[in-house]
Amino acid sequence: MTHEAGIPLGIRFKLLSDTPQDSAAQVVSDVVIGDYRDLDTLRDFARGCDVITFDHEHVPTEHLRALEADGIPVRPGPDALVHAQDKGVMRARLDALGVPCPRHRIVADPADVAAFAAEGAGFPVVLKTVRGGYDGKGVWVVGSAEEAADPFRAGVPVLAEEKVDFVRELAANVVRSPHGQAVAYPVVESRQVGGVCDTVIAPAPDLDEALALRAEEMALTIAKELGVVGHLAVELFQTRDGRILVNELAMRPHNSGHWSMDGAITSQFANHVRAVLDLPLGDPRPRAKWTVMANVLGGDYPDMYSAYLHCMARDPQLKIHMYGKDVKPGRKVGHVNTYGDDLDDVLERAHHAAGYLKGTITE
Amino acid sequence: MTHEAGIPLGIRFKLLSDTPQDSAAQVVSDVVIGDYRDLDTLRDFARGCDVITFDHEHVPTEHLRALEADGIPVRPGPDALVHAQDKGVMRARLDALGVPCPRHRIVADPADVAAFAAEGAGFPVVLKTVRGGYDGKGVWVVGSAEEAADPFRAGVPVLAEEKVDFVRELAANVVRSPHGQAVAYPVVESRQVGGVCDTVIAPAPDLDEALALRAEEMALTIAKELGVVGHLAVELFQTRDGRILVNELAMRPHNSGHWSMDGAITSQFANHVRAVLDLPLGDPRPRAKWTVMANVLGGDYPDMYSAYLHCMARDPQLKIHMYGKDVKPGRKVGHVNTYGDDLDDVLERAHHAAGYLKGTITE
Repeated sequence: MTHEAGIPLGIRFKLLSDTPQDSAAQVVSDVVIGDYRDLDTLRDFARGCDVITFDHEHVPTEHLRALEADGIPVRPGPDALVHAQDKGVMRARLDALGVPCPRHRIVADPADVAAFAAEGAGFPVVLKTVRGGYDGKGVWVVGSAEEAADPFRAGVPVLAEEKVDFVRELAANVVRSPHGQAVAYPVVESRQVGGVCDTVIAPAPDLDEALALRAEEMALTIAKELGVVGHLAVELFQTRDGRILVNELAMRPHNSGHWSMDGAITSQFANHVRAVLDLPLGDPRPRAKWTVMANVLGGDYPDMYSAYLHCMARDPQLKIHMYGKDVKPGRKVGHVNTYGDDLDDVLERAHHAAGYLKGTITE
Repeated sequence: MTHEAGIPLGIRFKLLSDTPQDSAAQVVSDVVIGDYRDLDTLRDFARGCDVITFDHEHVPTEHLRALEADGIPVRPGPDALVHAQDKGVMRARLDALGVPCPRHRIVADPADVAAFAAEGAGFPVVLKTVRGGYDGKGVWVVGSAEEAADPFRAGVPVLAEEKVDFVRELAANVVRSPHGQAVAYPVVESRQVGGVCDTVIAPAPDLDEALALRAEEMALTIAKELGVVGHLAVELFQTRDGRILVNELAMRPHNSGHWSMDGAITSQFANHVRAVLDLPLGDPRPRAKWTVMANVLGGDYPDMYSAYLHCMARDPQLKIHMYGKDVKPGRKVGHVNTYGDDLDDVLERAHHAAGYLKGTITE
C-alpha cells in the first residue's frame, strides 16, 4: 500500500522482505529477500538507499542505530521507534510527558502482579510482554496472581496495566516530517473483536469536539516530543468517566488509518512517504461525511474469488483492498472501505462485504 | 497507473516493455524487455498470461490475431482494436453505424484532396495517416492542394477530413466488460494546446443535458457494436450548430479520463482492469462537483524537484501524478488533479501547478 502511494509521487522503493510471498514483495519491482534481524543483511540492503522506513516495528533498535552510524537516514529513527517497540520505555516516557495512560508497572513475577492489583489497579490485570506483541498476541488478562504464571515463562520483561473501564477505543493518527510540519487526521473509532481490529469509523461518531481536539493535540505532542518522523498512530481508550488514555503507539501506517486510502484527501500511506522524504505534507481532511473500514479476515474457504465477484457486483461503490495473502482462518487478508452520508448504510455495506468475503454472511 | 489500480484488487501484472526506463517498467515487479512488433517476443511473453491488455494501440493487429489463435484472450480483441488503430476502418464502421463524424474520404494524392474540398468540405482540410498518429503527429492541416504533398510522401494511406468548426472538444469515456456490462463516465471537456491535451474538466461545464446523454449513448453504442472490452475514449467535437461529431477513438485508459483517478468513485484504470478480467464494474460517478486534470509537460529545466516541493507546499490538496520520465521539452511527464466546488479555483490550482512544474510560472 506504501508502494501504491509512492507511484504517483514518482518515488521508487527497494524492499527488504522475508519471503517472495509477502504482500509488498508481490508488487514492488526491486526486492531483496532477507532477514531484518541480521545486521549484515540490513547493511547490504541499505547501501545506496536515500532513506529507510518500515511497515512493521520489529527491526532491532540496535541495528537501526548501526545503520544511522553508517550514515543512512532511518525514519522514524531508533530513538523514536523504541517507544513503539518497547511498551516499558513508552510508558515511562509518556508518564514523563504527563500524557494520561492506564496505571502500569513493570512486574517480575506473580507476586508483583498481586501487589500492583492491591495498590489500586485491582483485578483483572492486563499483562503484556514489553516487546513483540500485536493483535492480542503477547497479551494476557488475568483475574488473579495464580493465573499470572504464563507471561513470565519466556523470561522477558512484563508490563502490568489496569484493565481500563472503557466505553470505546479511539485512534488519533498524525504524520510529522523532519522539518517539523505535522498533520492530524480526524480521530476515529476502532472496534475490536477478539483483540483484532474489526471496524474503524472516521470520524468517531458522537465524539465531543473538545475531546477530539485533546486527542489530536496529544498525538501531535507525542510525535513532536518523541521526534517521530512519518506516521504515528495513538490508540486510545475513551473511559466511562470521559477521559482518554493512551493504549498503544504505532510508528508506521496503521490499520486505524486504512480508511484514509479512500476517505481522506491524502492517505496515511502518501503522507508517511512524504514525511519520510521531508516533502510537504498533504491535506488529511476527510472527503466524505463518513468512511468505514472493515478488515477482511480469512475464513474456512481458501478461495475468495466468487465472494469477491459477489461483493463487487452488489456494491459498485465498494473499495476493496486485497493483500495477496493466502487465506488462513483469522488472518487479515485485506480490508474494504465504504463512504457516504448515512452512517448506518455505510456500516452495513462494509460489514456485509467483509462478512461475505470471510464467509460468515452467505446471502 | 494500471498497476497502481491493480494492487488493491489483488491483480498482478506481467509487463512487456520496450526499455527498463518506461514508466510502467519502473514500478511493476515482473517485467520482460522486448519489442511488441515482434510476434515471437509476444508469443513468449503471452505464455501463462490469463489475459493480455495494452496501454497503447500500436501492437500489430495481425499479431493479436495470432495470439488469439494460440488461445490467449486479448482484450480489447483485434476486431475491436483495429478501429482505434486504423482511422480509415474506424470512419467506415462509424458511418455504417450512423454515428455522426466529420466529412471524410481516403485520398491518394493532392488532386483527391482538391476534389474532396470542392465537393463540400472546403479548405482547410485535415489530412491524417490512417495508422500511427497521436498528439498531433501524423496530422496536417492544409489550406490548398499545393500544400498537401507531405502526407503522401511516406506512401501510407491518408484520410482527408473536413476541418470542423467546433466550439470545444469533449470526450465520452465508457468501459465495457465481456459479459456486456458497461458504465459511462460523465462527459468531459478537453482543451488542447498545440495538438496536445492541456486540460480536462469533469464534467464538461455548461453542457446541455440532452447533448451529454447523447454523447454517452453514442460511446456506449460504439463500445457495444465494436465489441470493445475495457476502456473506450470517444473524442468528440461540439460544433457551433450544436452537433457532436466523433473525432478519434482510443481503446485503453486515456488522458481524458485521468481526472477519474482522484475525481471518480472508480478510476478508469480500475474499471479497465475489472473489465479486462470480466469482474463487475465499479461506479464511475464523480466524487466532487468539479475535477480538473492538467498535463505536466517538460520545460527547459530537467530537474523538477524544487518545483515539485513548491507545488506540494502551496496546495496540500493537489494530487500529483508523475510518470518517472526524463524531462524533455514538450514531453508529457505527469499530470495533476484538483477538485472542489468552485470551478475557477479548481482550474487556477491545476494550471498553477502544471505551469510551475513546467517552468512557465515562476511565482
